[in-house]
Amino acid sequence: MKKASEIKQASFEILYKSEHNGKARHVFDIFLVSLIILNVVAVICEPSIVESSLRKAFRIFEIISVVVFSIEYLLRIWVADLVYPEKNKMIARFIYFVTPMALIDIAAVLPFYIPFIIAVDLRVLRMLRIFRLMRIFKANRYTTALMVVIKVIKNKSEQLLSSLVIVFVLMTIASVTMFNIENAAQPDVFTSVFDAMWWSVATLTTVGYGDIFPITALGKALAAVIAILGIGIVAIPTGIIASGFNELLHNKLHTIKCPHCNRDIEVE
Amino acid sequence: MKKASEIKQASFEILYKSEHNGKARHVFDIFLVSLIILNVVAVICEPSIVESSLRKAFRIFEIISVVVFSIEYLLRIWVADLVYPEKNKMIARFIYFVTPMALIDIAAVLPFYIPFIIAVDLRVLRMLRIFRLMRIFKANRYTTALMVVIKVIKNKSEQLLSSLVIVFVLMTIASVTMFNIENAAQPDVFTSVFDAMWWSVATLTTVGYGDIFPITALGKALAAVIAILGIGIVAIPTGIIASGFNELLHNKLHTIKCPHCNRDIEVE
Amino acid sequence: MKKASEIKQASFEILYKSEHNGKARHVFDIFLVSLIILNVVAVICEPSIVESSLRKAFRIFEIISVVVFSIEYLLRIWVADLVYPEKNKMIARFIYFVTPMALIDIAAVLPFYIPFIIAVDLRVLRMLRIFRLMRIFKANRYTTALMVVIKVIKNKSEQLLSSLVIVFVLMTIASVTMFNIENAAQPDVFTSVFDAMWWSVATLTTVGYGDIFPITALGKALAAVIAILGIGIVAIPTGIIASGFNELLHNKLHTIKCPHCNRDIEVE
Amino acid sequence: MKKASEIKQASFEILYKSEHNGKARHVFDIFLVSLIILNVVAVICEPSIVESSLRKAFRIFEIISVVVFSIEYLLRIWVADLVYPEKNKMIARFIYFVTPMALIDIAAVLPFYIPFIIAVDLRVLRMLRIFRLMRIFKANRYTTALMVVIKVIKNKSEQLLSSLVIVFVLMTIASVTMFNIENAAQPDVFTSVFDAMWWSVATLTTVGYGDIFPITALGKALAAVIAILGIGIVAIPTGIIASGFNELLHNKLHTIKCPHCNRDIEVE
Repeated sequence: MKKASEIKQASFEILYKSEHNGKARHVFDIFLVSLIILNVVAVICEPSIVESSLRKAFRIFEIISVVVFSIEYLLRIWVADLVYPEKNKMIARFIYFVTPMALIDIAAVLPFYIPFIIAVDLRVLRMLRIFRLMRIFKANRYTTALMVVIKVIKNKSEQLLSSLVIVFVLMTIASVTMFNIENAAQPDVFTSVFDAMWWSVATLTTVGYGDIFPITALGKALAAVIAILGIGIVAIPTGIIASGFNELLHNKLHTIKCPHCNRDIEVE
Repeated sequence: MKKASEIKQASFEILYKSEHNGKARHVFDIFLVSLIILNVVAVICEPSIVESSLRKAFRIFEIISVVVFSIEYLLRIWVADLVYPEKNKMIARFIYFVTPMALIDIAAVLPFYIPFIIAVDLRVLRMLRIFRLMRIFKANRYTTALMVVIKVIKNKSEQLLSSLVIVFVLMTIASVTMFNIENAAQPDVFTSVFDAMWWSVATLTTVGYGDIFPITALGKALAAVIAILGIGIVAIPTGIIASGFNELLHNKLHTIKCPHCNRDIEVE
Repeated sequence: MKKASEIKQASFEILYKSEHNGKARHVFDIFLVSLIILNVVAVICEPSIVESSLRKAFRIFEIISVVVFSIEYLLRIWVADLVYPEKNKMIARFIYFVTPMALIDIAAVLPFYIPFIIAVDLRVLRMLRIFRLMRIFKANRYTTALMVVIKVIKNKSEQLLSSLVIVFVLMTIASVTMFNIENAAQPDVFTSVFDAMWWSVATLTTVGYGDIFPITALGKALAAVIAILGIGIVAIPTGIIASGFNELLHNKLHTIKCPHCNRDIEVE
Repeated sequence: MKKASEIKQASFEILYKSEHNGKARHVFDIFLVSLIILNVVAVICEPSIVESSLRKAFRIFEIISVVVFSIEYLLRIWVADLVYPEKNKMIARFIYFVTPMALIDIAAVLPFYIPFIIAVDLRVLRMLRIFRLMRIFKANRYTTALMVVIKVIKNKSEQLLSSLVIVFVLMTIASVTMFNIENAAQPDVFTSVFDAMWWSVATLTTVGYGDIFPITALGKALAAVIAILGIGIVAIPTGIIASGFNELLHNKLHTIKCPHCNRDIEVE
């Protein structure tokens, strides 16, 4: 069984070890990212294609993709015990199975297989393939610049999510108040609090589609307040991310040589 | 009377002491936040409900909520003298009565009681319950991340409010000028300076609903200037908040060497 | 003539010396800011007023205001030689006459007087009074917070104006290109490059009224690029202002006492 | 041949050496920037002009401009070997030929010449002249403020481009999902994924024209999520640029004490 364990080790290294810079990994990376991007292009173009020969070509490409991604998925499940070596084999596999990336992978291939088992049409769900695009953030051939950006967002994710609480409280109060103000004047537009919520999102985020807005004087006054508060809502995550980049800037301890005594000193 | 004062002390600790981490407080907190959120959901869904049995259920839930919140409010009034121990009993209660949170609380329950006393329909005012959602910012079970965000906003609230003065001056000048330019060309759209104000809010905040905009060349030129200034208007609070987060970052202690005696000192 | 020069000196101190904290100046400040704000309210409400008695009241208020502001203006011209003591009397007055604040002041009162001299209707120009609102930034009774915000904008005004050059270059290129793309498809909407400029302002500033947008595939692709660049356009002034606030933060040299040797040290 | 090489050296210095502050360069700079701006004005106004005599004047101005820019272009090609002195003459010229600025220059004059050689109407391409406006960023008579802004953008260009990857991934996933949700409800509006992409750009950048938006509950919920994420999308480049300005701020030298020998050292 030496051979099998060697293949397993090699698979593990190609699939997971970002330091493994051998040719096999390089080829594998380019191949997989290309396949993902081609799948995305296919999902985007598919609904616009009417010619039957082209549809067939797309279908064949999908089958090939699903086969490749299924093999990759099974390999990852297989080597999961090497990823979490301290765990029991089956527990390691289950832990891998519920990671977000693995769930995206299974969601991307399952809609293809299910119709073979039970008679159900999952055509729409096949677009779940698109989520596999998130894999790009995991690929290793990136410039460090994107890594820095992602690191800042991760570092500040807790504060960013917290600021969402403020958005939700503001949005809820604005929506209920606006509904009570505008419902009488525009019963067809502000039919429920949910319509008012749709308005408040469009206003707080400064998108402003223009499909729903107040027409009464009181409603306009409230909308003005909310729109101005919307600027603050934009300002909070921006301030958080800006401070995240600054933190990174300052945390760089760098070493210089003292020009007088020629010894190393660390300065911030 | 020992017992009454003990109950009072216990109520005070559960209601106010965030350090009090006993089980009673924990249960009370979860119960109250849940009740507030359920009330919010009720206020949001209520106008969309037509079925009479469901309406009745909502009414019963409201009665229960109002009873709970009334008891809580009376308790808070009762223990107010423990919150401000240096004040006279009645003055302490009055001080508590006019705090923003207490005013929100009374506004949330009063519209339920008034119709029993005088024959008036305050159905619309019952949506004031929604403002109780602000209590969430006072709850103690939060991650520190939200506290940091709120602290930054509070620290910078003076500067943020000041920047509103700039917004108002700009908005007023833009509105009056735009009204005088566009009134002749679109008398039905720009009927008064207030219409022009509605336009200027939508433009300066970059919401841009599209229900009102200039059509003359001069009006469009002014709108372009205002829209570009609008970017600056967004930039000011963002800069303020970003610097607030940086300030927090820098206030962490760091060690320098005293140039006189060469020993370490910690400075902010 | 001692008395005249004393009045002049007193006027100068009330009008210009912000350190002069006597009661006269205090009363004068409140009176003037109130009068300015009332004038703004009048300009805003005037077009909506139809009742003739109210119109008459507004007219009387305008006459009083113009008289007050004219006297203030003449006083300022009179004492101008004390403002620029190193200059010749008439030159000092001319220098004052062409300051932006003095030009705003004269623009605010002139449209009232001209119709008495030559038979011309300057009713529209009377709204120039609104610009006097800018005087608020010069009043002395402010919180320091607004002063800080204004100082940051002033410090960074050169960089902010420079970033406008980038906006204009981008806007011009976008407009000409978009006009050439969309003119054939929407000849009534994109009739000239100026229409395309109106579109590009609305897009780059992310206002997006929705009165003009591309409908061809190529036009939409360009609009997408411009909208994404628009984010950068918003980011530049924000970054400038944020760094302005940080600069202020860091420039605060503050003195601490060394806890070991008890001497003063200045640290940033 | 001494004379020719002297002319060449002089041309090189006027065209390239920003330190060369002689009168010739000064005049040349003002002349060229003026000509570029006049060309831009011409391109903007041209489609709105109907009078034949004015059209003729514009045509003559265009001929003069093209001649001037052609001479400048040829001169730059001629002196290219002085710009890259370490290269072979022809290679130096080719290197210059493919620089972005040279490609813009050739794109600006070629559409004028081609119709003389082959019978083709390139009237539309003549608007390519507008791109020459970018030359303004290369001119030397600027305030340093614009240089600072451009330097910050250049320093951070890698991070800014990286953040575009995040925008594209988000946009693609949002578009495909939205198309699958809304296509059934609005088959005429969301006809293809490309329509959904147009929607997602308008939403993520918070432009919100209002020509396309979801009408189903699920679609609106997704749009709300995307609009809120759009705030983050705006926040990322802003944070990057803000930190770029701060970096510049901090790179100013400051003096520390070497902990080993206690003498002063200047560090960045």
